Amino acid sequence: MNLTAATWTDADSVETDLAVLPVGSTEQHGPHAPLGTDCLTAEAIAKKGASQADPEVVVAPTIPVGIAEEHRQFTGTLWVQPDTFRSYVRETVASLAHHGWDRVVIVNGHGGNVDALREVGARLTRDEMAYTVPFTWFDSVDMDEIREEVSDADNLSMGHGGPVETSLVQYLQPELVQTERLSEADAGAADGWGEWHSGVNLVYDSAEFSENGTVGKPSESSAELGEALHSQAVSNLAALLETVAERDIERPTHT
Amino acid sequence: MNLTAATWTDADSVETDLAVLPVGSTEQHGPHAPLGTDCLTAEAIAKKGASQADPEVVVAPTIPVGIAEEHRQFTGTLWVQPDTFRSYVRETVASLAHHGWDRVVIVNGHGGNVDALREVGARLTRDEMAYTVPFTWFDSVDMDEIREEVSDADNLSMGHGGPVETSLVQYLQPELVQTERLSEADAGAADGWGEWHSGVNLVYDSAEFSENGTVGKPSESSAELGEALHSQAVSNLAALLETVAERDIERPTHT
Amino acid sequence: MNLTAATWTDADSVETDLAVLPVGSTEQHGPHAPLGTDCLTAEAIAKKGASQADPEVVVAPTIPVGIAEEHRQFTGTLWVQPDTFRSYVRETVASLAHHGWDRVVIVNGHGGNVDALREVGARLTRDEMAYTVPFTWFDSVDMDEIREEVSDADNLSMGHGGPVETSLVQYLQPELVQTERLSEADAGAADGWGEWHSGVNLVYDSAEFSENGTVGKPSESSAELGEALHSQAVSNLAALLETVAERDIERPTHT
Amino acid sequence: MNLTAATWTDADSVETDLAVLPVGSTEQHGPHAPLGTDCLTAEAIAKKGASQADPEVVVAPTIPVGIAEEHRQFTGTLWVQPDTFRSYVRETVASLAHHGWDRVVIVNGHGGNVDALREVGARLTRDEMAYTVPFTWFDSVDMDEIREEVSDADNLSMGHGGPVETSLVQYLQPELVQTERLSEADAGAADGWGEWHSGVNLVYDSAEFSENGTVGKPSESSAELGEALHSQAVSNLAALLETVAERDIERPTHT
Amino acid sequence: MNLTAATWTDADSVETDLAVLPVGSTEQHGPHAPLGTDCLTAEAIAKKGASQADPEVVVAPTIPVGIAEEHRQFTGTLWVQPDTFRSYVRETVASLAHHGWDRVVIVNGHGGNVDALREVGARLTRDEMAYTVPFTWFDSVDMDEIREEVSDADNLSMGHGGPVETSLVQYLQPELVQTERLSEADAGAADGWGEWHSGVNLVYDSAEFSENGTVGKPSESSAELGEALHSQAVSNLAALLETVAERDIERPTHT
Amino acid sequence: MNLTAATWTDADSVETDLAVLPVGSTEQHGPHAPLGTDCLTAEAIAKKGASQADPEVVVAPTIPVGIAEEHRQFTGTLWVQPDTFRSYVRETVASLAHHGWDRVVIVNGHGGNVDALREVGARLTRDEMAYTVPFTWFDSVDMDEIREEVSDADNLSMGHGGPVETSLVQYLQPELVQTERLSEADAGAADGWGEWHSGVNLVYDSAEFSENGTVGKPSESSAELGEALHSQAVSNLAALLETVAERDIERPTHT
Repeated sequence: MNLTAATWTDADSVETDLAVLPVGSTEQHGPHAPLGTDCLTAEAIAKKGASQADPEVVVAPTIPVGIAEEHRQFTGTLWVQPDTFRSYVRETVASLAHHGWDRVVIVNGHGGNVDALREVGARLTRDEMAYTVPFTWFDSVDMDEIREEVSDADNLSMGHGGPVETSLVQYLQPELVQTERLSEADAGAADGWGEWHSGVNLVYDSAEFSENGTVGKPSESSAELGEALHSQAVSNLAALLETVAERDIERPTHT
Repeated sequence: MNLTAATWTDADSVETDLAVLPVGSTEQHGPHAPLGTDCLTAEAIAKKGASQADPEVVVAPTIPVGIAEEHRQFTGTLWVQPDTFRSYVRETVASLAHHGWDRVVIVNGHGGNVDALREVGARLTRDEMAYTVPFTWFDSVDMDEIREEVSDADNLSMGHGGPVETSLVQYLQPELVQTERLSEADAGAADGWGEWHSGVNLVYDSAEFSENGTVGKPSESSAELGEALHSQAVSNLAALLETVAERDIERPTHT
Repeated sequence: MNLTAATWTDADSVETDLAVLPVGSTEQHGPHAPLGTDCLTAEAIAKKGASQADPEVVVAPTIPVGIAEEHRQFTGTLWVQPDTFRSYVRETVASLAHHGWDRVVIVNGHGGNVDALREVGARLTRDEMAYTVPFTWFDSVDMDEIREEVSDADNLSMGHGGPVETSLVQYLQPELVQTERLSEADAGAADGWGEWHSGVNLVYDSAEFSENGTVGKPSESSAELGEALHSQAVSNLAALLETVAERDIERPTHT
Repeated sequence: MNLTAATWTDADSVETDLAVLPVGSTEQHGPHAPLGTDCLTAEAIAKKGASQADPEVVVAPTIPVGIAEEHRQFTGTLWVQPDTFRSYVRETVASLAHHGWDRVVIVNGHGGNVDALREVGARLTRDEMAYTVPFTWFDSVDMDEIREEVSDADNLSMGHGGPVETSLVQYLQPELVQTERLSEADAGAADGWGEWHSGVNLVYDSAEFSENGTVGKPSESSAELGEALHSQAVSNLAALLETVAERDIERPTHT
Repeated sequence: MNLTAATWTDADSVETDLAVLPVGSTEQHGPHAPLGTDCLTAEAIAKKGASQADPEVVVAPTIPVGIAEEHRQFTGTLWVQPDTFRSYVRETVASLAHHGWDRVVIVNGHGGNVDALREVGARLTRDEMAYTVPFTWFDSVDMDEIREEVSDADNLSMGHGGPVETSLVQYLQPELVQTERLSEADAGAADGWGEWHSGVNLVYDSAEFSENGTVGKPSESSAELGEALHSQAVSNLAALLETVAERDIERPTHT
Repeated sequence: MNLTAATWTDADSVETDLAVLPVGSTEQHGPHAPLGTDCLTAEAIAKKGASQADPEVVVAPTIPVGIAEEHRQFTGTLWVQPDTFRSYVRETVASLAHHGWDRVVIVNGHGGNVDALREVGARLTRDEMAYTVPFTWFDSVDMDEIREEVSDADNLSMGHGGPVETSLVQYLQPELVQTERLSEADAGAADGWGEWHSGVNLVYDSAEFSENGTVGKPSESSAELGEALHSQAVSNLAALLETVAERDIERPTHT
């Protein structure tokens, strides 16, 4: 059930304790993919995954601004401080739990949110406010398997605005990818994320290592690849929701 | 320009210092109107108003969860604490300003956000981070004028989930209004907001004075009325944006 | 019972759960009225209103500094940040409640405090710390009725340092009004508060629209008008206290 | 100049950078002395001391609620958390400094505020917001000297609601001391503050060591003693203000 | 230079802008390894690495309590909230920078601190307070290489209180490892960290998946393995410090 | 039991509710004594005192950075803000209490921490999280008695980096005192702490009144004096721990 479109009486008649909260970011994704990439991917997977799960699942609206200061040198990137983001997500989940939806999967589309969402999930779970786990769709996907099936790429890694994200947008909303700029995007892209030494990433901002904000080769994207990613992420989420629904969520006691 | 759909390079090529940030709430609107009413009305008016203004205007994504603890007894209502909401909005506006869009109109669809947005606007403006004013669409509309033109109602006041909001949703997304429940909605509605004594509202939660969360007569709604409201709000916003664009925003000095 | 003057043993022997907390501001009120206007009016009305109410009422000391950054361009205006003010008031009320005085009316003399006090009242009430409502004396008064009775003014609106506040000070502490400056005050005053467009106040500071900080015509003030205002505000407060004393303050449950 | 009674134009015409901010507490002072003792003593000394100093001194209104949780078992005691108190005082001083009064003496009447005020003074001074020092009147007084002059007591120490504070109230507002309860007050009083072991005070609340909240022998109080205390505290404050006025307040640089 | 043992004049005579701040945790490491494991490993590697680097490096004292709520079911585990830890580390680094040591490597011994330290490093670096990167020693080590050289283990992964950490303590302070309990430790250990589904760790506390808090086979530890780990971590840190010393740390500008 | 060196199973087998938490500071102590003076003195006394007390006592690791902004003009001084320090200590004690060690003595070596630790102890005690008292070793010692026994000094007061602290370091870790600089240290030292007027300390930083950060005559130090100080402080702490162990820690009720 999509909360945004439902009335409160409809929401009240749902028999479930499961909810998903999509969380994205509005931030640069190269010259070819939209600033809203992380929102639209998270939302699409959340809605589809929720609909495929067996118990009914409530879908909350998508939180559109996350932790993205690392992209602030590229126009249009929006962000809030980590503390603010954590509070906003935590309190939103707490309000879901207030209505009895106290098993919550946060469906995340942005790497920069991962650490904060784990912290929020721990707090809510330990306080027994809501059992909450963050699901970052691209961390759930077996990239090697998908590459073998539907991609010519030598290597299919997440990158940023690279083939993975670009393909998913092409599948979901093809008009939002500027395909005529894909080779330009390749040209200004970095090969990998960051600049590493002794296990340490020496940089904090994408502008330190990528000319146009992209990491990876956007030109290797395709709607077909996007469909495969979508399909696997959706299945993974649906399976996760069923696992969460049945899980014993009692907290361990002091040893 | 809709930020969500644009690439950063597109956003970078816009010549403007004007942005709008739609802010809504996900909260009960009676048994007939969707929980997302305040988001979809704010977003629709923001986009249309921005497109009608003469200087180009950047449209940020819609913030979906606001200050709505007052409706928490009705299922599906989401909320964060006022401090969290203020920080989330303030920092989002600050990130808009970081890109040079430092004249910002917050387009608001929810009464419970009004005080907080005024506080945020003051802070951002006084700190010279961004000249920021909140525009709450229903406070801009001349209800009497509209009532005379397109409504049979004796009285057209804002209410909550009443004819004003319901009509606007009917105009924007008619499938989201459960018209078959309008008379039921009337039956459980309150006549006015709160319970007053000596200029003081003695209650804090809508469940204290409304059976089903509604204030006003939803059955007096119509798509025609919605269109009139939309049209006037959009014109008001466009005019405001032009005023803001030309305004001298230097702060006054100590007397 | 005036807490400041009482011993703890006297306070302990009072049989009541009712308290009032006067809250003012130290801020400019034009060239003719004192910086302490909002404190002395709130305190006077709080004490008199409490004494006229039927159940005994504890009167806390007056909080003298509020939210008044909007007047900071005028010398002598003091202010704290809204968050600080909210915490200071909320915790003071909580300490009243600790002694069993858990029905609290905050008697407020300053418009800039209104939103914050409503937020504080909501928090304390919903947390069942204390049922708390803010009473802003000038919002309780029927200005039209009073104008007809005792004023020649065409229009009697609140303004700032205008006839309403000036009159009340004249009645309470006439030596604090510089009557010889009233026409000068008129000359530098604004007609109304702020600068409005499409339901939006475009300004944040009084120095943006008033030369000397005044709004309204101070020369229309009189001690007689002040007495009428005082009398009505006091009666309203006393009536409110009796209502609060008898009110069922149990919180509504989830629908 | 008393800010509360002055207009902003009067405040504006003062040529000084000196201000005093009286800070008290509303808390139990035994069965015989008023809850407002610390406010009225701080305010009286602040006003008189300011008037005796040579440069003109602005007197801010008195902050009435401080750090007094230690007395909360006695009815009528009000308190806020230390963080809230520090913010409230710090921001009030910052607003004084905004008008050019950036040498501020906080005149304090309550022992429980001392640590917090020192922390606030350090912050304001180091940030070069305002050179700020807290003056706690009873720490400035030479008790031995005064005892020899005007008291029969063997020992004149501060205590709580003891001869020192009680005498000062008797001198300032005799009607607020319940002299008929002085022997009763003696009977339930503690000899000293706290319960000590190895330089550590083992208790946190006055109810842990005093039956009626008093420390010391209130019956040894007299208006004459109060006058002597007042006179010395006032002289000390006036001398301090002159010292502060002439002091080089530049911060030391890194060695 | 070890700050703790130096005088301020000695510290003042050092010509460097490099500092390391060791950060550990006091938390369970199974029945065989000490609660202080993460502190002593971080401190040893920090001191040795600093001494091997070419530019002189200031070594700050070790922060002993970190983010370890995940181990709280096991006696002796200490922890603070993530916000508190971030502030404590950030302000400590800022004080190092105050003396000109504004290139700081945080040497970390605990997995639970990693996310927070990255956030702190980003904040300090972006604010140009200090260029700060966290070095987590075990993330710098090539476990496969070391396993081939000095271990019989099929697999050498970090675990918790497993062969990696246990070996390092055996090398550094052999008396702190209870070797007679190693097989008992194996028996109650988990094979891996957490419980995973679709890329999501479903648990938050180690007591949810490990009987005695250990992850990995402690019995595969040896002082020889510890020496190899130490040696490589120290070399990595020394190399990192030289890289940091020479790095251009100017922040990128807006594109 | 020293937590750092113990395993969690060892910690679990201790039958006690007593713990000590050593708290120091890393800050200048003149040209002759180490920056870590306050840490090493607090830790030594805590460990020895704990071992001499009759009930078993858990010893937590030493918190190395405190409130020392007052010494920041001297190189190597580290500090955090008071709020951060209070949270860090409070939460560390709360984690001790989580394991049943809910009678906690904080053993403090730094004057600048005293006020904050008292505030923390009050909060933890009143919230019934843990009965917590701060023991500042030099406030427990009878300086006159010790001076008569083992010192030629006319006066033995605490100072800063003076004979008291220097002697204790000489006793504990003689290699850390630069004895050849003692007369130089004397030369740049202040006689007393601060600059006083009317009971007010007019300065906030040690650099305002001491050339080299020292207060007192370091040349009057000796290992013998250090031993006497240590011995008395240790006895005092042991006696305090026994008192705390047997104390009735129930909170007083409202009078």
